[in-house]
Amino acid sequence: MDVIRLGLGGFGTVGSGLAKILDMNRERIAKRLGKRIEIASVLVRDLNKQRAFDLGSDVTFTDDPKALVNDDIDIVVELMGGLDTARDLILDAFAAGKHVVTANKHLLAEHGLELFEAAGKHNVGLMFEASCAGGIPIVQTLKESLAGDEIVKLLGIMNGTANYILSEMTTKGMDFEVALADAQDLGYAEADPTFDIEGFDTAHKLCVLIRMAYGVDYPLADIPIQGITGVTPMDIEFAREFGYRIKLLAHVMNVDGRLEAGVHPALVPYTYLLARVGGNYNAVRLEGNAVGPIMLHGQGAGDLPTGSAVLADIMNLVRGMECRDRVPDNTGFCNQPLPKADILPPEESESKYYFRFTVADRTGVMATITKSMAEHGVSIAQAVQKGEAGEEGVPLVIISHETSAKAADAMIEEMDAMDFSVKPCVKFRIL
Amino acid sequence: MDVIRLGLGGFGTVGSGLAKILDMNRERIAKRLGKRIEIASVLVRDLNKQRAFDLGSDVTFTDDPKALVNDDIDIVVELMGGLDTARDLILDAFAAGKHVVTANKHLLAEHGLELFEAAGKHNVGLMFEASCAGGIPIVQTLKESLAGDEIVKLLGIMNGTANYILSEMTTKGMDFEVALADAQDLGYAEADPTFDIEGFDTAHKLCVLIRMAYGVDYPLADIPIQGITGVTPMDIEFAREFGYRIKLLAHVMNVDGRLEAGVHPALVPYTYLLARVGGNYNAVRLEGNAVGPIMLHGQGAGDLPTGSAVLADIMNLVRGMECRDRVPDNTGFCNQPLPKADILPPEESESKYYFRFTVADRTGVMATITKSMAEHGVSIAQAVQKGEAGEEGVPLVIISHETSAKAADAMIEEMDAMDFSVKPCVKFRIL
Repeated sequence: MDVIRLGLGGFGTVGSGLAKILDMNRERIAKRLGKRIEIASVLVRDLNKQRAFDLGSDVTFTDDPKALVNDDIDIVVELMGGLDTARDLILDAFAAGKHVVTANKHLLAEHGLELFEAAGKHNVGLMFEASCAGGIPIVQTLKESLAGDEIVKLLGIMNGTANYILSEMTTKGMDFEVALADAQDLGYAEADPTFDIEGFDTAHKLCVLIRMAYGVDYPLADIPIQGITGVTPMDIEFAREFGYRIKLLAHVMNVDGRLEAGVHPALVPYTYLLARVGGNYNAVRLEGNAVGPIMLHGQGAGDLPTGSAVLADIMNLVRGMECRDRVPDNTGFCNQPLPKADILPPEESESKYYFRFTVADRTGVMATITKSMAEHGVSIAQAVQKGEAGEEGVPLVIISHETSAKAADAMIEEMDAMDFSVKPCVKFRIL
Repeated sequence: MDVIRLGLGGFGTVGSGLAKILDMNRERIAKRLGKRIEIASVLVRDLNKQRAFDLGSDVTFTDDPKALVNDDIDIVVELMGGLDTARDLILDAFAAGKHVVTANKHLLAEHGLELFEAAGKHNVGLMFEASCAGGIPIVQTLKESLAGDEIVKLLGIMNGTANYILSEMTTKGMDFEVALADAQDLGYAEADPTFDIEGFDTAHKLCVLIRMAYGVDYPLADIPIQGITGVTPMDIEFAREFGYRIKLLAHVMNVDGRLEAGVHPALVPYTYLLARVGGNYNAVRLEGNAVGPIMLHGQGAGDLPTGSAVLADIMNLVRGMECRDRVPDNTGFCNQPLPKADILPPEESESKYYFRFTVADRTGVMATITKSMAEHGVSIAQAVQKGEAGEEGVPLVIISHETSAKAADAMIEEMDAMDFSVKPCVKFRIL
């Protein structure tokens, strides 16, 4: 039986996950492809480090990126993460005519266009299902299953760490710091959780999915990003009373031909399936102008789920390999390079909002705030004031109707400057 | 720009849905493929019938199946339903070297192996995403995204009509007949709803998905099928009290290397996402040994959602067309023809059960039933007796632990023969 030989760049969680699956599902894979898939060489930083999974003696380990891309390899699998070394490895692989599978969302977000162009130039495949939402087949779904749909809107819970922390805060009333520490103890959060909790990781994935959904490039730098560090148990409790759960959402939608995108903690009506995505699960909700609403739910991280996505890409490449005269369809769109997106300026985006003011318990405060809202055209849907007055002031929560980000921010700036404002106003979008 | 010309077999709901999408998403499709897709000819029963969608004057209408498969056509799209004419049309298309897209789950379930073989012989594609769960990309997901996973278990709510009826019965406490009549008025159920409410349509889809998930043939005739006509508001109410919703579920799982499959109304814990699939929506929950649990949720029927799936298949075929030397991978497995499944005899299948006995309100009845259960090794988890005694007797509901279908049925047979049994015992599986 033919053998497809892989060169692995990196052998951490996902790499050893892939190795485990290749081992335990060997028969299944052969039935699918009529070929065997083997790991031939592995690029690691430290040759002496103990491995989570024993690859046996036939596998060559090297710490030289150049050495990984050799004639012996059919497909290069980049699982090392980071930017520069990974980028060089992939470009070298392309130059050598190798197909590449990567799970590197950060690299794709930063240098995706360059990589697509290089892959096209060398007529090789660049696959990256594992880069977004782990085992959830969202890339494939956008590229092929919804190929004929105009994507009206895409909403995603795509960071398991952030979702786990918010779920713990919601179910156990924990403070953010406590939930984060727990997540770190359980290995759900890294020592430096910045990318996860500040929303950057989610933004990287959104950037990748926007290309697959719309065939345009929405520069990472242009995506407004708000993390979850500002979410308090108090906000979660208020949200609950109004019938919402707070989730870290990535969103992109077509607003009269222009794209509006962002990553924000958002209040999701508890009746929505998205509100029920718990723990370290991920979900993506799509709306196509033909297919209507679709939701995909699954594990967004972990060695086996992510390894499964990497393997799916490898098998897709193998299926296409007999086909020499076919240009790999890496982006799912023919007009290359992908044009820049026509972007709706974030300040023009419209949304319902949750505002939490922290004010001194004084007569006329509510009047001043509601007057300012009226002046800025921010229309009030619900309002509630609660709790004892004290040094920290009292929380005053207002749910608005649809309003522009610009109007909301102008109003907040005005109110934060008031002497009755004990703390800056907290603002979250409402789905 | 190149043009791909379609020959449509049938122009009903899905056909006109496809035509609408080709029209409204023309630009998007061209961006994806660098080609245009046009409907060239349409096969209809009655040439004089008014059409839901005007295709314009360039489209040829014919009532002769032989005439549809002509040199002018690149892809034949079979949307006529039924068995014999559809089967002949597809075989003629293959013989003429045309790729085929079909939404015909019944035909695939009955004659799928023959069609796969014929397509392979003529080296053409047979695509059928639209045959299962409408717009939900479940076929593609099994064929490509989970290609490297062993499917541990698959659960599906795959008939919108049955799910709509059960949802109405659940939310409005309606009787089955009333809910069915409503569904028919709304066009959710056909004049003859047999296929939908008796579970046959769901079984056809399950039969197709088993092939894609396991690469084996599980003959339709071997799938145990129980429809929803026996579900009463009383059962739904009891189920609710125990924390369950009743859904018509298709299931298949790998039990120590043998497949257990079936279509049954089942009690689903209300905390499961599957329990929240409402109205005419569909959902499929998969468990892969690598990817873990995944759920896909969306619209399982309707002109546009199903048309979207048909279009995805067409576009996939077009993407592969440049590739002359590649054998289309229609089943996702190489060992053709698909071998017969190693089937677990249904009577050996294990499940928790919901039993509703209708008994005369007499001393010792409960004792007799529980004694018989003990003798048959059916262990009781919960029991409740309710309501006024009367001509109709009183309902006695028992929830069992895991037990074999054989033991459960033997116990029921024994109890139904008792003089205190006013009506036969009702039995549903519990998820």
